[in-house]
Amino acid sequence: MPRIAEARDAAAPSSTEQHARVGRILEAAAELAAENELERVQMNEVAKSAGVAVATLYRYFPSKTHLFVAVMLDQIDRMREKFARRTRPESSARDAVHDTLLQVVRALLRRPLLSAAMIQSNSMAKAAAVPDTARVDRNFRQLLYDAAGIERVTERDAALLRLLVHSVFGIIQSCLNGRITVPDAESDLRELCDLLLAEWPDSFTPAG
Amino acid sequence: MPRIAEARDAAAPSSTEQHARVGRILEAAAELAAENELERVQMNEVAKSAGVAVATLYRYFPSKTHLFVAVMLDQIDRMREKFARRTRPESSARDAVHDTLLQVVRALLRRPLLSAAMIQSNSMAKAAAVPDTARVDRNFRQLLYDAAGIERVTERDAALLRLLVHSVFGIIQSCLNGRITVPDAESDLRELCDLLLAEWPDSFTPAG
Repeated sequence: MPRIAEARDAAAPSSTEQHARVGRILEAAAELAAENELERVQMNEVAKSAGVAVATLYRYFPSKTHLFVAVMLDQIDRMREKFARRTRPESSARDAVHDTLLQVVRALLRRPLLSAAMIQSNSMAKAAAVPDTARVDRNFRQLLYDAAGIERVTERDAALLRLLVHSVFGIIQSCLNGRITVPDAESDLRELCDLLLAEWPDSFTPAG
Repeated sequence: MPRIAEARDAAAPSSTEQHARVGRILEAAAELAAENELERVQMNEVAKSAGVAVATLYRYFPSKTHLFVAVMLDQIDRMREKFARRTRPESSARDAVHDTLLQVVRALLRRPLLSAAMIQSNSMAKAAAVPDTARVDRNFRQLLYDAAGIERVTERDAALLRLLVHSVFGIIQSCLNGRITVPDAESDLRELCDLLLAEWPDSFTPAG
């Protein structure tokens, strides 16, 4: 039986004021989860720290899982913006994806508790109950398409990046939990890009 | 701050009677988790159903995470025994690993709640607190070495299978949560074996 909180639909913000409120909630949640294990992060503390009523928090995020999947989506979108502002280096599509993933992994390892909270919430979330989880997958793949310079995504590219993303989260989680070391995680990441993207051309867009 | 239950060391069974008791606990836990979401599985119900005192249960498994990582290890060891009794078909090492993984994935999808409980517990478990989690990785890789007929494992084989195992759990979790369909999961699995194990020879042991 689904929990009532999981079954209820989340409200979507519409006005500028509502967007600002959701932004404050996501920031407060990220800050609290960077300092505490997920199970110790309380919804009422998030509300208090964001300056909203608990009822408002639950209206947007019916459960802690909804909240931290949204935090993950927000973090991915921030990374996409940050990477989009950079000039792309003169490297192959495969190397560009690898460099991007390496930066993502290093950023995640700098805030291990927050990363564990996001990845754990995202991997537990049912797609039907938490629509943001499909957006996490999609936007993360988009970040990698952007890095590779792929404008027209083929089914094959989508399938390869789906495989890559499955594995990347697995590697990060193993590393966060001390099952593999950081150097092992980084070498796994390199190997993974080399093997999964071996068939890619050096570049997807005509030079110049 | 770690929870006290996580910090305490688990007792290991020694006598035949103790092993039987642990076996009953693991079976009871698997049965309860096959019928209920993990968060609804109560330690005292597991104890009751296994016919042991709650204190005994906690002595062997200081937390629900310890318990379900042990259930996962037990399920993997059962699969290893089952597969070991089969005559190996006349297929390449890569195909043999793929066939084995496909059977593992199908078995896991037949009991989705139990599988979610095991994978979720294992991916949250810290290696330092829950030593069984390293055994889960090791024994799962061993199951695949057996399938491939690899007797002398090189560092390279170990690295490739580590990548494969990261991805396989990611695929299963996405499938359990409805983020990808079963046919997509099966095609991802095929693709993954083809790409990650492309460099493998057809066979690792001399024929005959």
